[in-house]
Formats: sequence, C-alpha cells, structure tokens
Amino acid sequence: MGKILVLYDSATQHTKKMAEQVVAGAIRVAGMEVRLRLVTSASAADVIWCDGMAVGSPTNMGILSWQMKRFWDTEMQEYWGKIDGKIGCAFASSGGWGGGAELTCASILTVLMNFGVLVFGVTDYVADQFTLHYGAVVAGEPRQEKELAACQKLGERLAYWVAKYVDRQRD
Amino acid sequence: MGKILVLYDSATQHTKKMAEQVVAGAIRVAGMEVRLRLVTSASAADVIWCDGMAVGSPTNMGILSWQMKRFWDTEMQEYWGKIDGKIGCAFASSGGWGGGAELTCASILTVLMNFGVLVFGVTDYVADQFTLHYGAVVAGEPRQEKELAACQKLGERLAYWVAKYVDRQRD
Amino acid sequence: MGKILVLYDSATQHTKKMAEQVVAGAIRVAGMEVRLRLVTSASAADVIWCDGMAVGSPTNMGILSWQMKRFWDTEMQEYWGKIDGKIGCAFASSGGWGGGAELTCASILTVLMNFGVLVFGVTDYVADQFTLHYGAVVAGEPRQEKELAACQKLGERLAYWVAKYVDRQRD
Amino acid sequence: MGKILVLYDSATQHTKKMAEQVVAGAIRVAGMEVRLRLVTSASAADVIWCDGMAVGSPTNMGILSWQMKRFWDTEMQEYWGKIDGKIGCAFASSGGWGGGAELTCASILTVLMNFGVLVFGVTDYVADQFTLHYGAVVAGEPRQEKELAACQKLGERLAYWVAKYVDRQRD
Repeated sequence: MGKILVLYDSATQHTKKMAEQVVAGAIRVAGMEVRLRLVTSASAADVIWCDGMAVGSPTNMGILSWQMKRFWDTEMQEYWGKIDGKIGCAFASSGGWGGGAELTCASILTVLMNFGVLVFGVTDYVADQFTLHYGAVVAGEPRQEKELAACQKLGERLAYWVAKYVDRQRD
Repeated sequence: MGKILVLYDSATQHTKKMAEQVVAGAIRVAGMEVRLRLVTSASAADVIWCDGMAVGSPTNMGILSWQMKRFWDTEMQEYWGKIDGKIGCAFASSGGWGGGAELTCASILTVLMNFGVLVFGVTDYVADQFTLHYGAVVAGEPRQEKELAACQKLGERLAYWVAKYVDRQRD
Repeated sequence: MGKILVLYDSATQHTKKMAEQVVAGAIRVAGMEVRLRLVTSASAADVIWCDGMAVGSPTNMGILSWQMKRFWDTEMQEYWGKIDGKIGCAFASSGGWGGGAELTCASILTVLMNFGVLVFGVTDYVADQFTLHYGAVVAGEPRQEKELAACQKLGERLAYWVAKYVDRQRD
Repeated sequence: MGKILVLYDSATQHTKKMAEQVVAGAIRVAGMEVRLRLVTSASAADVIWCDGMAVGSPTNMGILSWQMKRFWDTEMQEYWGKIDGKIGCAFASSGGWGGGAELTCASILTVLMNFGVLVFGVTDYVADQFTLHYGAVVAGEPRQEKELAACQKLGERLAYWVAKYVDRQRD
C-alpha cells in the first residue's frame, strides 16, 4: 500500500476544493491509502506516515501562507533530516492569473526540497492551454472541468510515482 | 524625456504581440521615447540608452529563452556593473496556464537584478481574476482584451516609474 | 529627509546583527532617518512611514520565517495596493553556505514585489568572492569584516536609491 | 546497473572541476555507470540514456548559462514529454558568495522539472556551515575539502536515489 498525504491550507475554501480533487486523483491508482489534512489540524505524524505528499496553499503575496510555513518551521522542525526521500508536489489557488500561484508552488517545493523530498511537476496538458508543470494552479474558485482535471492529474501522478518508486521497495 | 526600451524574444509572435502592447502602454505617459527591439537585433547600446526597460520572452522550460539569456551573458557582459539604477520589469507568453510564465518572468527579473536594475510588479488587476503581480503573462496568442490590457498596464507603469524616479533627476 | 525601515526577524540574533549593520550602512547617507524594528514589534505604520526598507529573515527551509510572512499576510493585508512605489531589498542569515539564504532573499523580494515595491540587489563585491547580488547573506554569526561590509553596503545602497529617487521628489 | 549523467557547462573550469567530483561521488555507489559530458559535446541521447542526472552551470547573472539553456531548448525539445520520471539535481560555481549560485541551481531545477524530472536537494552538512540543500555550490575554484565533499555528496546521493528508486525497477 502506498501512503499519500494531501496537506493544505485554505482561507476561502478554494484550496480545500483543490485538495479534494487531488485526493480524487490519487485514489485512481490502485492500492493507495490517502489522508486529507487541513494544515492547522495536521501533525508531524501525518508527514512521517506518508510516502508522498501534495502540499497546497492559497497564494498569499506569492509565497505559501504563513500558517503552512509555520507548520514546517515548528511542527516539522525536529524531523528535519529524518524524512528524506519522500515524493512531493504542490498546488495553489490564487485571486487571478498572473497573481503568483506558480511562485507559490515554487515556494512550497523549496520547503519540501529542504526536507529532502524529491519534487516533481507534470508535463501533461489537461486541456487546451492548461497544464501543471510546477503544480496545479487555479484562479478563483476551481469550478471549470480543466481546473478540476489539473488537480486530479496532480494527485494521480503523485500516486503513480509513489507506486512505482516507493511502494515497489516493499516488494 | 524618459527613455523606455521594450526588448523581447519571440518564436511564435505571441511575445512580439505582447511587446507591442507594452509599447502602447508606455507611450500613454507624456514625454516618453520608446524603442522596441527584437533581442537578436538589439545591442548593448539600446540598454545603455534607456532609463527603464520591459524584457519579454517566450516561456521555454520555465526560464527565459536561450537567445535572451545569450544577449545578457555576452552582448551585455562588459557593461555589467556600469548600468546600475535603471528600472525594469518582465513579460512572458506561454503555451498554457500553469506552464511557467510566472517563473519565466522571475528568471528575467533575476537577470535584471544582477545588473543592478530596480525591478517591479504591478498590484492592479486589469480584469476579474487577471493581474500582473510579477510581470504580464498570457497563455497562447494574446487576443483577449484583458491580455492586451495587462501588457499595456505594464508599459504604462514602467513609464510612470521612469517619469517619477529617473526623469525627474534631470530637472 | 529619506525614511528607511530595517525590518527583521531573528531567532539566534544572527539576523539581528545583520540588521544593525544595515542600519549602520544606511546612516552613512546624509539626511536619512532610520527605524530598526523586530517583526513581532513592528506595525503597518512603520512600513507606511518609510520610503525604503530592508527586510531580513533567518533562512528557515529556504523561505522567509513564518513570523515574517505572518506580518505581511495579516498586519499589512489591508494596506495592499496602497503603498506601491517604495524601494526595497533583502537580507538573510543561514546555517551554512548552500543552505538557502539566497532563496530566502528571493522569497522576501517576491513578497515585497507583491506589494508594489521596487526591489534591487547590489552588483558590488565587498571582498574577494563576497557579494550581495540578491541581498546580503551570511552563514552562521556575522563576524567577519566582509560579512559586516555586505550588510552595510546593502543599507547604504538602499539609502542611496531612496535619496536619489524618492527623496528627490520632495524638492 | 544504474545510469548517471553528469552534464555541465564551464567557462573557467570551475564547474568542470565540480562535475568531476560529482562523478567521483556517484561511483561510490556500487553498480553505477557514469557519463561525464560538457554540454556543447552532449546529445539528447545522453539524457535519454540516463536514469538520473546532475546538471551544472557557471552562475551567469543568477541563471544557468545560455549554452546550457540552449541545450534544453533545442537539442532536447523533441524529447519533451517523453522522458518523465528521471531523477535530477543541480550544481553551480560562482564568482562569490551571495552571487547567485543557489538561484542558478534553482533555475536548473526549474528546467529539469519542466521535463518531468524528480529533483532533490541534500539535507546533510558536509562540514561546519557548508551544505547543499538545493544543489552543490562553490565560490571561485573548488579547492577546499568541503567544496569537493559537497560535490561528491551530490553525486553519491543522486546515485543512491537512482539505485533505490529507478534501478530497483529492473529487478
């Protein structure tokens, strides 16, 4: 069984809706156990438990939210250097295109890399002119099919890499 | 007179169309002289001449194009450390949302900062869910009014800062 | 009179020591009024007051500290879009070279750009193999002359741009 | 057998010396076949061949060199979307601390992520105040033991992840 954590912060519920779609994508891969956690309710145990994680945040000034940052700075601090080798990816909602969602994903990936996580983006397009090369991004509430598809694709790809690379270790 | 350079690379003409709109925005500010240059036809003299510049590139793997990079690595190399204090900003076309246009703008701003340029983004939204916080970005050919407006706003703001901060020096 | 804010967060006092040197550099420029503020004691009024600011943080997972991020996400939120055009720069201490201090500076600059701040780096070298192209960075406690010089240079350059570009407006 | 590519650009031979140490680190892991390639002599076949790659560049304006960028923009373009799932990391020499080596590593990782590569940094310190959280970085010619150790550690960790995650697939 591969273990997937979808960890998110959300102010307007937009990132929460993204997170739910990431979960929907992850469970498409057979044999995945998935946890969905709001960052203020999550614990280090959730991160330690997982093989791979998708971490999502609202776009707040082009960088992950302070609440999400606090989680990694405080809750996770004592586990730094002890959880290397997990697989990770990012997603972010934003107020508008050009508003910093890609940069927010990049900031999440920077934090994950700092913890020794192997991070990835997705080359696939999920619709015309819509992709997730550095993580799934949306502007406003995710309602359009392509926005949901981007989140699902992220979760599915995460589960795929976990199944192929991490879970295989257990054979 | 303030002097504005709009320097761009373009493969599909999408970034070229953005560049033309940036010019259109810049000339809205009274007293601006504007040069539009394709990077392969530009020279160091164009950069030295200007008070402020908007630099645009296609999104190629999430980073400015190699031709644009070559210009700064080679043509501009001997002027490094000699042109500090200009004002600069970025724009980028991309194949799709989530494809790296914001990161491409960030890479352009990194190059400009390295040359001592003061770089900026724009807080304004030009339409619902459409802004240019780190530079103007579009997906595909810029045709929608909001895409053109973002490019125009970038040029206008650049000219505004040049008029306020640099040109004022000449009084 | 130009108004300079040096705003910092600090856990080990390393970033605090950097901040003090940034102040020392800023007051080298005649006619500067300088405020030094720990982020947990700062208010939005300090940011609104200033013409230019240097913002410093420990390197926490390659991104500004959650306390510094919280300040911009919460205390400053209502002033977003209302303080465009200030001048800004960054500094960061870290546990070691290669540990993310440059990326932390980049994350600070991303936040500042989001607020419409014009951000800059410094082309000058302050010693052999020691510079501050994206902000001043140190590893461990800043004790070496070149480390102090980098922080001083940052403050001095900030004051220089404020004097040249912003303060001049008041003539 | 795991297949490792060490791909680099070098102007002053500093990055070349780093590359050689990355190779030295990679072959510490049993069963690794390693190719060392200067980017102007490399071909797409080298990238396609490998399971994992370390990509190095001089710090040129805070971004990978134009020659390295050209390789990915042109030589690799037709293979985009066809080589997902490899493992990758970065290294960069620079003229000085604070000069952009970390940002150059980040730009390399952005390019690799665009190609679907899973990228990583290293949590370990190789000496007091010397690490490689986002890739190995040096200032000037890599001569000190800790600088060589950082490059070796990068290669060794790359080989370790390839052995654990990719090579294991072949069992």
